Amino acid sequence: MADTTLTPERILEAAEEVLRRFGPGKATVVDVARVLGVSHGSVYRHFASKTALREAVADRWLDRVHADLPAVTAGTAPAAERLRSWLHTLHGTKRATALDDPELFATYVALVAEASTVIAASLDGLVAQLARIIADGVESGEFAVDDVPRSARAVFYATVRFHDPTHSAQWADPDIEQQLDAVCDLLLDGLRPR
Amino acid sequence: MADTTLTPERILEAAEEVLRRFGPGKATVVDVARVLGVSHGSVYRHFASKTALREAVADRWLDRVHADLPAVTAGTAPAAERLRSWLHTLHGTKRATALDDPELFATYVALVAEASTVIAASLDGLVAQLARIIADGVESGEFAVDDVPRSARAVFYATVRFHDPTHSAQWADPDIEQQLDAVCDLLLDGLRPR
Repeated sequence: MADTTLTPERILEAAEEVLRRFGPGKATVVDVARVLGVSHGSVYRHFASKTALREAVADRWLDRVHADLPAVTAGTAPAAERLRSWLHTLHGTKRATALDDPELFATYVALVAEASTVIAASLDGLVAQLARIIADGVESGEFAVDDVPRSARAVFYATVRFHDPTHSAQWADPDIEQQLDAVCDLLLDGLRPR
Repeated sequence: MADTTLTPERILEAAEEVLRRFGPGKATVVDVARVLGVSHGSVYRHFASKTALREAVADRWLDRVHADLPAVTAGTAPAAERLRSWLHTLHGTKRATALDDPELFATYVALVAEASTVIAASLDGLVAQLARIIADGVESGEFAVDDVPRSARAVFYATVRFHDPTHSAQWADPDIEQQLDAVCDLLLDGLRPR
């Protein structure tokens, strides 16, 4: 491949192919350059280090797993309905990804676990979406909350069983969605005015 | 040691000593018999299999970690206060155990993970304590809940970040107790009548 056609997008696709084929230990700049048939210098022109490349792959995967959430956040349904739907969407996508190909899921989870700044940014982004839904609910009178960001973070922490990959073994439970519904009921009651 | 002085208690103490010294792969009947200086037949008289012995050790450890909870459950404080105190007690004991000796904690966690019937019984026991506190709150008018066991289980699931060993790496966060308080506030508001 001529170096001139080498884009960050093309490099990231190759890195994902390497990960899929060889597991989380791989997908270094050298591995990816080999798959692309270019020098590793060409890859370094787009990603300054192995860490930068692996973080970009982790980030891209999280973006894909979370792709359906912004539309739920920005929807026009009542806030309570949107909040429940948002949590079920996050759980559903994570569960489908984990159960569909557990080995590839574990590979990406291991990659994400290395990338603490990517994790922190992703978490902040998700909590900001929850905060937006809760703020909408406060405005419409559905919810009464003193501190919206604190409640948003509490909702995120209270649902880790349903979205944190360390719990993926439990996502095959036949009643996992009923468990999430019971937690949603309690959290939504906690947000409502009294 | 004469076989006549061999009690289940003495065997379990020896098994814990073996675990502490040699890690989770050890603590088989043969290892424990060697430490006690008895034949493994003598140990089998009390524990029918390696699995039975390891399950008993796991059970004993969980009993120790959860030892302070029944007094909180049976206390006379208002139900909301007891529920918060129960969750902070569970988190506090788990966190202290994990941070005090992370390697030994990991050893016991690995042992517990093998013992699915022990885990299920322990979880049911903890949820039953939560259900008792919630039922007390319903009786006193502090809480209004349609289905007490369902709410008790939801409270347990909504707090896994603070008691499930898979989250132990987060328990060193300086604001972990404030995180638990934010979740408690939301859950308690969810249980209150409106």
